[in-house]
Amino acid sequence: MRVLGIDPGLVNMGWGVIHIDGSRLSHVANGVCKSGKGDLAVRLLALHDQLGAVIAAHKPEEAAVEQTFVNSNGAATLKLGQARGIAMLVPARAGLAVGEYAPNAIKKAVVGVGHADKAQIAHMVKLQLPGVDLAGPDAADALAIAICHAHHLQSARAAARVVA
Amino acid sequence: MRVLGIDPGLVNMGWGVIHIDGSRLSHVANGVCKSGKGDLAVRLLALHDQLGAVIAAHKPEEAAVEQTFVNSNGAATLKLGQARGIAMLVPARAGLAVGEYAPNAIKKAVVGVGHADKAQIAHMVKLQLPGVDLAGPDAADALAIAICHAHHLQSARAAARVVA
Repeated sequence: MRVLGIDPGLVNMGWGVIHIDGSRLSHVANGVCKSGKGDLAVRLLALHDQLGAVIAAHKPEEAAVEQTFVNSNGAATLKLGQARGIAMLVPARAGLAVGEYAPNAIKKAVVGVGHADKAQIAHMVKLQLPGVDLAGPDAADALAIAICHAHHLQSARAAARVVA
Repeated sequence: MRVLGIDPGLVNMGWGVIHIDGSRLSHVANGVCKSGKGDLAVRLLALHDQLGAVIAAHKPEEAAVEQTFVNSNGAATLKLGQARGIAMLVPARAGLAVGEYAPNAIKKAVVGVGHADKAQIAHMVKLQLPGVDLAGPDAADALAIAICHAHHLQSARAAARVVA
């Protein structure tokens, strides 16, 4: 199955699609949606349309979005929230289930520990998806989110086997 | 012309449509979109679909959304941001220009001062839109936002006449 990971952001929204075949993961595509300049509504529409085009092109069956870290900067949190609303809506409109993962769960799934910088994440994403050409750090984060979702699905399947 | 006002909120999203004929305002419709229970993506999709149905039914030509008050509660700000992303996106997808107004600008346009409670706003909305049947305080706020946008358009038109 194909999973779309989304790293929500108003300026740059990273995305990455991976293919899961049992315990094997492979890279399908990754990139960054950009909202450009203009009124907020126009920028959100740009993100909506670009993310919709990604889903139409790569046909993921599930999606996963990073849970946003809430900080003390209310204005920044609001901006991120607006972008995250779009990141959640677009896959839901396409009929995909949308998982949410906390930043430290994503890091733990990809790097093995809950704390890791962007360079480490990009390095581990490259190791786990051989041959991947990363469109940037936001795209690397999005692939990390997709990998986290894949691990989650694999654990759920393994648990089901133990029970059965 | 018809203007759609939207009071963004994740649980309840108020909306109100008014008709502007020169300096005369009249009520068209008002209501509240509800996100219900479930995953965040499902709730955002519910708001998206209901707001889309409002636009399809009442065919506004412009929209106005309240600028969100950012407070110290980051989690609440994030939730509101996600709902606000939908409130901005849906009219933009329908090709409407989307204005944004600060809460005190809306109160000033409707009540005459920058500070007013919900009961005062509902009272003044009823005075300015005779015969209106309010669906609740969020719908009253949405009509107030539409009225604020109408005043803004009327001032712009008056200024254009002075210049011409």
